[in-house]
Amino acid sequence: DAVEEAAEDAAEALGPVVGIVMGSQSDWPTMRPARDTLRVLGVPHEVRIVSAHRTPDRLFDYAETATGRGLKAIIAGAGGAAHLPGMLAAKTRVPVLGVPVQSRTMNGLDSLYSIVQMPRGIPVGTFAIGEAGAANAALFAAAMLATTDAELAERLDMLREAQTASVAEEPDDL
Amino acid sequence: DAVEEAAEDAAEALGPVVGIVMGSQSDWPTMRPARDTLRVLGVPHEVRIVSAHRTPDRLFDYAETATGRGLKAIIAGAGGAAHLPGMLAAKTRVPVLGVPVQSRTMNGLDSLYSIVQMPRGIPVGTFAIGEAGAANAALFAAAMLATTDAELAERLDMLREAQTASVAEEPDDL
Amino acid sequence: DAVEEAAEDAAEALGPVVGIVMGSQSDWPTMRPARDTLRVLGVPHEVRIVSAHRTPDRLFDYAETATGRGLKAIIAGAGGAAHLPGMLAAKTRVPVLGVPVQSRTMNGLDSLYSIVQMPRGIPVGTFAIGEAGAANAALFAAAMLATTDAELAERLDMLREAQTASVAEEPDDL
Amino acid sequence: DAVEEAAEDAAEALGPVVGIVMGSQSDWPTMRPARDTLRVLGVPHEVRIVSAHRTPDRLFDYAETATGRGLKAIIAGAGGAAHLPGMLAAKTRVPVLGVPVQSRTMNGLDSLYSIVQMPRGIPVGTFAIGEAGAANAALFAAAMLATTDAELAERLDMLREAQTASVAEEPDDL
Amino acid sequence: DAVEEAAEDAAEALGPVVGIVMGSQSDWPTMRPARDTLRVLGVPHEVRIVSAHRTPDRLFDYAETATGRGLKAIIAGAGGAAHLPGMLAAKTRVPVLGVPVQSRTMNGLDSLYSIVQMPRGIPVGTFAIGEAGAANAALFAAAMLATTDAELAERLDMLREAQTASVAEEPDDL
Amino acid sequence: DAVEEAAEDAAEALGPVVGIVMGSQSDWPTMRPARDTLRVLGVPHEVRIVSAHRTPDRLFDYAETATGRGLKAIIAGAGGAAHLPGMLAAKTRVPVLGVPVQSRTMNGLDSLYSIVQMPRGIPVGTFAIGEAGAANAALFAAAMLATTDAELAERLDMLREAQTASVAEEPDDL
Amino acid sequence: DAVEEAAEDAAEALGPVVGIVMGSQSDWPTMRPARDTLRVLGVPHEVRIVSAHRTPDRLFDYAETATGRGLKAIIAGAGGAAHLPGMLAAKTRVPVLGVPVQSRTMNGLDSLYSIVQMPRGIPVGTFAIGEAGAANAALFAAAMLATTDAELAERLDMLREAQTASVAEEPDDL
Amino acid sequence: DAVEEAAEDAAEALGPVVGIVMGSQSDWPTMRPARDTLRVLGVPHEVRIVSAHRTPDRLFDYAETATGRGLKAIIAGAGGAAHLPGMLAAKTRVPVLGVPVQSRTMNGLDSLYSIVQMPRGIPVGTFAIGEAGAANAALFAAAMLATTDAELAERLDMLREAQTASVAEEPDDL
Repeated sequence: DAVEEAAEDAAEALGPVVGIVMGSQSDWPTMRPARDTLRVLGVPHEVRIVSAHRTPDRLFDYAETATGRGLKAIIAGAGGAAHLPGMLAAKTRVPVLGVPVQSRTMNGLDSLYSIVQMPRGIPVGTFAIGEAGAANAALFAAAMLATTDAELAERLDMLREAQTASVAEEPDDL
Repeated sequence: DAVEEAAEDAAEALGPVVGIVMGSQSDWPTMRPARDTLRVLGVPHEVRIVSAHRTPDRLFDYAETATGRGLKAIIAGAGGAAHLPGMLAAKTRVPVLGVPVQSRTMNGLDSLYSIVQMPRGIPVGTFAIGEAGAANAALFAAAMLATTDAELAERLDMLREAQTASVAEEPDDL
Repeated sequence: DAVEEAAEDAAEALGPVVGIVMGSQSDWPTMRPARDTLRVLGVPHEVRIVSAHRTPDRLFDYAETATGRGLKAIIAGAGGAAHLPGMLAAKTRVPVLGVPVQSRTMNGLDSLYSIVQMPRGIPVGTFAIGEAGAANAALFAAAMLATTDAELAERLDMLREAQTASVAEEPDDL
Repeated sequence: DAVEEAAEDAAEALGPVVGIVMGSQSDWPTMRPARDTLRVLGVPHEVRIVSAHRTPDRLFDYAETATGRGLKAIIAGAGGAAHLPGMLAAKTRVPVLGVPVQSRTMNGLDSLYSIVQMPRGIPVGTFAIGEAGAANAALFAAAMLATTDAELAERLDMLREAQTASVAEEPDDL
Repeated sequence: DAVEEAAEDAAEALGPVVGIVMGSQSDWPTMRPARDTLRVLGVPHEVRIVSAHRTPDRLFDYAETATGRGLKAIIAGAGGAAHLPGMLAAKTRVPVLGVPVQSRTMNGLDSLYSIVQMPRGIPVGTFAIGEAGAANAALFAAAMLATTDAELAERLDMLREAQTASVAEEPDDL
Repeated sequence: DAVEEAAEDAAEALGPVVGIVMGSQSDWPTMRPARDTLRVLGVPHEVRIVSAHRTPDRLFDYAETATGRGLKAIIAGAGGAAHLPGMLAAKTRVPVLGVPVQSRTMNGLDSLYSIVQMPRGIPVGTFAIGEAGAANAALFAAAMLATTDAELAERLDMLREAQTASVAEEPDDL
Repeated sequence: DAVEEAAEDAAEALGPVVGIVMGSQSDWPTMRPARDTLRVLGVPHEVRIVSAHRTPDRLFDYAETATGRGLKAIIAGAGGAAHLPGMLAAKTRVPVLGVPVQSRTMNGLDSLYSIVQMPRGIPVGTFAIGEAGAANAALFAAAMLATTDAELAERLDMLREAQTASVAEEPDDL
Repeated sequence: DAVEEAAEDAAEALGPVVGIVMGSQSDWPTMRPARDTLRVLGVPHEVRIVSAHRTPDRLFDYAETATGRGLKAIIAGAGGAAHLPGMLAAKTRVPVLGVPVQSRTMNGLDSLYSIVQMPRGIPVGTFAIGEAGAANAALFAAAMLATTDAELAERLDMLREAQTASVAEEPDDL
């Protein structure tokens, strides 16, 4: 719709303000809700694959150019020994939001611990394992931007109100 | 020093931009590094005890007045069945940064899961269990603010550079 | 049958004495055994969706009106960072029975820890993860009521005896 | 004080309404807060050692005589492979409140799982590991009794209000 | 075959020496390998359902008559808050072999902890979660009996040798 | 006393019937209760250090000579990646009772899983982590022997009765 | 292709330099990526089934002949109470690379702990649970050999470069 | 002694063949046994602090120069969200041996998962949590080098034999 189109236009014109990155193609189904949420809220964004282990130089490049390209937040999803969010945070001052991707053998517990247990000095804001975490990272990024963007704040409030309104009084098939 | 004093003055004059809240007095040793970090970076802040379970109305009041009072981030620490960060996030659009306090019986694993596993729709950016997480939540809050505050960005960069410079080449007592 | 109908009638006439609440529609399959058990035992009850995170005000309203409306127990099911039971307990003196809903990524371990590890001062009686826990919460609520309701006590005893009688001596397909 | 003395008198005169049982002497430091809380609230109670494994017959006796002796709730604490609460619940209709005692090797995780994961049909309301859980089990028992005892309800409300009032606005040594 | 028939005859003539018990019909697929193994080894046995929670009196009866009926070992399988093996052991001197049944929400971790973490004084020999554990409990029971039964020892040795011989040098579809 | 001395004499005259082995000197404090229990019950035994990893040949020798030397049970304690019990069981038909020694980093969870999760075909009867498990393994070994030794059965019954009698009715410092 | 054929020829002519062993046929799907990786890199290898528990003597034979037969690395996969890698390492100086096979009840956590938590003195280099770990063990073995084999080093570098090049810039179905 | 001095001389003359790196000064007590072991075995080595998060560029430099400087193995210790070993492995073909440092809140479980659960393509050989793992990583590095260094192989065999010989037959204070 109009808001989404405006966001795409803005991203093209001004460049993205949020970067969504993930370790591999297989993380995309988990991360897609982050993209969808930013679209709905009209937040200019980009989506990239950056593998900490297979493309470490791309990771460094991405982080080193982040402030210069105007990014205000990076949403990074990774699974298993998930080093992507923490290493991005090590290389840029831009806030990094980490999304633990559900791994096959440990259900994402390895991903969660690898992302959230950062040592003092380099923070990663971490969200729930899986799609809920991806969507929430996007909502959080929007909330960050909304502290200095009244229109976005309003859109975010509307989204939250709609969410509240959508909760039925009773279960469907009582 | 000068920066810290300026921050105190600013907080007094303009009101705080970051709120540090915790569930009880016993969480204060864990949360103090958050306060210390904001002080060092000259970020105006306030510190409050807000117990989700013993003072639920205070929790709602705090959240409901957060935007109006100019808060741009809330750092919330809690332990055990740690509901404070999530319930604040349920009641305000202001970004909530959760710090799992190390609990006695589960070493903070209960705190971590209670904070990070938020359902889709209401995000809490979560940090490491304990003092490292508290300090990092403050660094993260500063990084958020620094996206629109060039001077703070510079102070944050200096802090990060000093941190890098402080890492010795070899262990002390080789 | 007759008992169930009588319960529905009583609930209509006198209002429910047990409230079954859950965080979302998706929790209903888990919580249905609670409703079915109360029906079988003829305990007047109601079923509501109350989301701690998406409808925090509804949560407070529900808890604040609980004693006034004659509720003697609240059965609350929630998953992930499950704050519903604890926050209800924070706002009402009515006993809250928590049911951890099995979550996708952590099999309900996050739900269990978020519910059972309440701090000293605000109790939640917690039951097993999933449907067994929901059914048992209802049995527990009935047992509570049965301490002052001889007829219900009798019905509960009969249910327990039938349960004992139903255990075969040997497995079926020996 | 007066309330406590009245409770002792009532317990002597009328017999206890809440039984506190535990598997061994070593569980007493964990369970004492349950006793102290009942005392403060003026709830007549008794304290017994009943070991599921060393005194199984005593366990059965205790459960079989519970309703006859007027018990309205049993608070049972046990550690490790903690079978006491569940086996009591198997033998009596009186609501059983389980308190997982913190074990040495597993920090009470074994106690928690052994108590909370009861199969469908026999419920145990479970509380937090350790002293917090013991105190909360007592508060819960009082809340159960308060649904039909207006004076106890009032005392419980006063306790909760005092608890709320005792939460300071700011940490002590800010 | 001949050995199996002889075992059935012996069981009929002399009564069983090993009892296989389980908490419910649903545990039978897990426990069947115990029965099959005893059959193959010609060990007289019986199979019973004994629920710790739904038929506690049957449990006590079973344990109290165990030595009198000539049982030399009891293999007990149970899931979740698995109290059956430990409570049998509390009531009889006959060695109890515990088999943790894989539970739905915790994959049998709750069953394992509930069985293996017995307090000092009442032992349960515990085996792996699931069918492997059931088969191994039977092998263990046979090995116990074989310490005073040379023929059984020989059969057991043959089974072990056959097992060793059955391991191929290389995987099938190399 | 007399029984203990008789056991020492018997062990000298006839050789031990139970072997207690452990991976290293550091396991001895954990395993000592096994020795003490066998002593009290008058069961001839021996104590050896056998390291699966540092003395694998000693392990094989020990297992290969076990039946010939008249051992009826081997109690094996080990910590961390605890391979001793399982490898003994792989090499002898004599029942192996495994005791998980509490490890420093994982509190014995690694020891427990390494011992209890044996694959189908080679059983290890596993006991609780730490000293309780060691004492219980000895009680279990005695119970095994008692199935064909009426005097030992009587001594074991007396021990169990004394244990039951030693449980006080109420905690000490009520 | 040519490299693979050359490797097969070399293995035939000179004997294998890497041994891939596993506890049972059922581990082969997990371990196949190790074989495939060594093939692609042209590393002479062999594949064997060696069960620590069912064929302990074969295990000892394999380890004792390893250096004599020219093996430079042994990749050992096992599940559950996984003793194969550690016992091989106890019997040979050849580096042992352990691969935890995903077990049914514990998702491989038991396998991982049984392999990685080796006591000081006997090392096993451990890799991720499942197929990723198997492939990585082979890559690691190749990297070890590459430290003294320039051609293999080159092939390994090419594989790593191809791997880097294969990472797309954006997800496929953006 | 002589071997150690020779190693120091060799390291000076030829440069180290093993690098020991760790994330911070506080990891040194854990990693020292790696250094001590290499010294005893006469393996030329160096010790460096390289923080993945505080000195990411130093990490890249270290990895990029590793082959050129003649390193044949890198032993990397780190705790919490331990990214150092995996990121080194991402940047160099030299085998990386990971040592999980015991963390305060999770006892090193976070460190272990962050190191061992590497995705397919970039391997890290992982060792036990803590000092045992550090010593074993050094033994493993020596074993790797020993495959092409007969003298080192001999020293390693002597060390292993001495280790075997040092295991007493019985515990000290029997």
